[in-house]
Amino acid sequence: MDRGAEFGRWKAQSLSKADLSRKGSVDEDAVAVVELLNSREEFFTTSSCAGRILLLDGMAALQGATSSAVLKFEPFILHVQCRTLQDAQTLHSVAIDSGFRNSGITVGKRGKTMMAVRSTHGLEVPLSHKGKLMVTEEYIEFLLTIANQKMEENKKRIERFYNCLQHAIERKPISNSHSEIKEKNNPICTHKNKRNREKAPDPSVPEDTEKELDSGDGLGIGAVFSSEDD
Amino acid sequence: MDRGAEFGRWKAQSLSKADLSRKGSVDEDAVAVVELLNSREEFFTTSSCAGRILLLDGMAALQGATSSAVLKFEPFILHVQCRTLQDAQTLHSVAIDSGFRNSGITVGKRGKTMMAVRSTHGLEVPLSHKGKLMVTEEYIEFLLTIANQKMEENKKRIERFYNCLQHAIERKPISNSHSEIKEKNNPICTHKNKRNREKAPDPSVPEDTEKELDSGDGLGIGAVFSSEDD
Repeated sequence: MDRGAEFGRWKAQSLSKADLSRKGSVDEDAVAVVELLNSREEFFTTSSCAGRILLLDGMAALQGATSSAVLKFEPFILHVQCRTLQDAQTLHSVAIDSGFRNSGITVGKRGKTMMAVRSTHGLEVPLSHKGKLMVTEEYIEFLLTIANQKMEENKKRIERFYNCLQHAIERKPISNSHSEIKEKNNPICTHKNKRNREKAPDPSVPEDTEKELDSGDGLGIGAVFSSEDD
Repeated sequence: MDRGAEFGRWKAQSLSKADLSRKGSVDEDAVAVVELLNSREEFFTTSSCAGRILLLDGMAALQGATSSAVLKFEPFILHVQCRTLQDAQTLHSVAIDSGFRNSGITVGKRGKTMMAVRSTHGLEVPLSHKGKLMVTEEYIEFLLTIANQKMEENKKRIERFYNCLQHAIERKPISNSHSEIKEKNNPICTHKNKRNREKAPDPSVPEDTEKELDSGDGLGIGAVFSSEDD
């Protein structure tokens, strides 16, 4: 069987399977991206999470917990199987240009080419130790404000990713070279720092945490739960 | 120029350049891995950080800071340019098998193939807001204990990575198919969950944060700073 036909079979199999995630459906904020990718013959998504704020060890039991509680913000994550390495490169470019700097390609033994869209954008805060709460309620509220700000920024990045992807798809058949996809008149999809596109991120430069923390206006508390669509 | 010769030229250029990182040298805990990779004709490293605990906004000025302070633990990160995609696949397998689950390959326009070794292991804790410290000193000490535990675990993963890499290199010329590299009699390099090797990580499963927080014996406070070796 040729590569294209084999990929088509994998895709059909994957999309016909039940959604085995706890939630049982794709997150609302990820639906448009997931549908756009699955509508293209060169891609299919295998798992996604639009982003989530989670408390490991149970919020209600915070005061009485016997082990350690941690508050986490996990940004958008998406796994996409790609027909060819070139398709994965195109998608990787879109991801980097949209701000998902930790994205990367995985090539399996049988030639399965996966692209993982990942952000550097996180929050991971231990709250209690052996049942003892180590922080104040005021601090937890402060954390939730920050987590919600990160969630909003995360949503904007997903939108940017959708727009850049659509743009890349519209311009030309996406399986061709991605070197011609970028347009000068589309500032949304243009990277501020050209160097980033050719070079992997510099680990000595801290992320834009300060900027994110500076805007301290309170947003509502919200939580989005993960989903897998494979 | 053929691909091999072009890669050799890139490598010679890259390794002859001064280390432009603030520290000016490769981190001690990363030296063995960096040297092993650079001794192989199919790889060269472009940047590395063995792991670091950092306070954005200055520790001494914590009480009087006018903006927001954040304590972060950033695990080992390594960028390696690879001669061929197959070489990158070999290295990716080694990284995943050593516990660096967020590793991934990037293929640039001119065929530059990079492998980024990344961990899911992090900590990011906002401490102050507009100059006001939001946590107690006891909590900061607690955080540093956790950060140091993560640093110790991180060191173990780097050692595991080194051992798996050496093993993969010893077994056969590393540029051949990586499908034969894995050995049954080397449990260090064998993944607990076979599924992880073929499939990207499941975003709905939280990382092993609880386990790490459970062992609460105090380790010394230490900080490792980053370095770039390109």
